[in-house]
Amino acid sequence: MTDADVAAVEEANARFYAAFEHGDLDAMRAVWVADSHAVCIHPGWNPVIGAAAVDRSWAVVMANTPYIQFILTDVEVTVRGDVASVTCTENVLAAAEDESTPGFAGGKAVSTNVFLRVEGGWRLWIHHASPVLSKSGADEGD
Amino acid sequence: MTDADVAAVEEANARFYAAFEHGDLDAMRAVWVADSHAVCIHPGWNPVIGAAAVDRSWAVVMANTPYIQFILTDVEVTVRGDVASVTCTENVLAAAEDESTPGFAGGKAVSTNVFLRVEGGWRLWIHHASPVLSKSGADEGD
Repeated sequence: MTDADVAAVEEANARFYAAFEHGDLDAMRAVWVADSHAVCIHPGWNPVIGAAAVDRSWAVVMANTPYIQFILTDVEVTVRGDVASVTCTENVLAAAEDESTPGFAGGKAVSTNVFLRVEGGWRLWIHHASPVLSKSGADEGD
Repeated sequence: MTDADVAAVEEANARFYAAFEHGDLDAMRAVWVADSHAVCIHPGWNPVIGAAAVDRSWAVVMANTPYIQFILTDVEVTVRGDVASVTCTENVLAAAEDESTPGFAGGKAVSTNVFLRVEGGWRLWIHHASPVLSKSGADEGD
């Protein structure tokens, strides 16, 4: 995998999180493959399958997210031909749920994002994010 | 994607769950790609990256799993050239944690398994399993 490939995948991954942060549904739609095989698993959700359903799910998530900011750590990019994976830790800063008390809530999830190389760049095929529940599975490296 | 491709991917996916059910670490190792880019996210864990670390993680998980049985539902297979994804719901029947009271505990997780076509078949590149926490994300179809 070339440095240029890795950089392009990292940029596509960044566009995904920027679209979410900005609550920009059009930008989010542009990140994804547009076919019936798109897979999106929001933390704690069942899978949402197909671009149309994924799009609707983001409309719901964004409508219920007044503020969110991601700091990504442990970003691991692998490019294998025309498919690429990004595994990362999503360190999340969000508006506190209790709206009567302005403030922030933090959280952490791990995410697997699989991209496909298409004409014009990389599109998101699979997004699977999940809450981190235990310390026992700390990254063991290799 | 051909029916033969889909069947071969389903068979590789079944081998993965059979290896776990049988606590067979050799069979589990044979399911996976053998390189440093293998990714395994057990439910609630941080990512484990690289075949050697993934192998060690299964040794730990199997040592702590006296009995487990999977009934897979909502199995969705997509083949795109030499890469394939399986999304499924893992309906789990396991030994109850309280060993003084023989019995079973049930549970549910959703899993994304990404396979690569290699000489001789399909190997598991990415396994990401996560607990289902809410009903709000019920499968919306497309």
